[in-house]
Amino acid sequence: MSAALEVALAYHDAWTSHDFERAMTYVADDIVCEAPAGRLEGAEAYRSFMGPFVQILKGSQLIAAFGDDDKAIVMYDTETVPVASAPGAECVTVKNGKIVYSRFVFDRAPFLQAA
Amino acid sequence: MSAALEVALAYHDAWTSHDFERAMTYVADDIVCEAPAGRLEGAEAYRSFMGPFVQILKGSQLIAAFGDDDKAIVMYDTETVPVASAPGAECVTVKNGKIVYSRFVFDRAPFLQAA
Repeated sequence: MSAALEVALAYHDAWTSHDFERAMTYVADDIVCEAPAGRLEGAEAYRSFMGPFVQILKGSQLIAAFGDDDKAIVMYDTETVPVASAPGAECVTVKNGKIVYSRFVFDRAPFLQAA
Repeated sequence: MSAALEVALAYHDAWTSHDFERAMTYVADDIVCEAPAGRLEGAEAYRSFMGPFVQILKGSQLIAAFGDDDKAIVMYDTETVPVASAPGAECVTVKNGKIVYSRFVFDRAPFLQAA
């Protein structure tokens, strides 16, 4: 398995198992994340974005995951408290075993509708 | 390059070049597509979904693409008339050189806001 994919899947396994603190061990302190709502800089900003999502997570299913030495893409479906099916895709860049950059794609529309 | 990725990228190159008819040659007649707004069945339904998007497309940039013999994921950013940055991710299953299944993820929120 590619080095980046290994980290991406370890991170994915952790947060989808509700072990968010373990997931954060794969996130670099200076992570930059381009998310639907805008650019997040640093692990604390990332934690504030992803932590609440993990709290409403009821289940997940991996759709596909691929990668090479530096980059990986993971696509998955999630079931959350407000939205029954909320798929997402993350393209991560990994350096020294940590995610330093993440491009995050998901549909905010059903969450906005539910809110 | 993997067989599925080759088709996924040929399809991607075609529609991002505004050659939508060429893109449709990579789409199976009985394609099933799970898109944010729901499930689409058949090439004509797919055409009605993707065609209007290509018409508002101003530019695009490939973020990453990976695949194996059967499946590929392509993530990209697009610039459209109503939305300056609208990234998307497609996970496609390919059989006999055609896309038979597509899981499509993008954020509808900025499009709904612009409408």
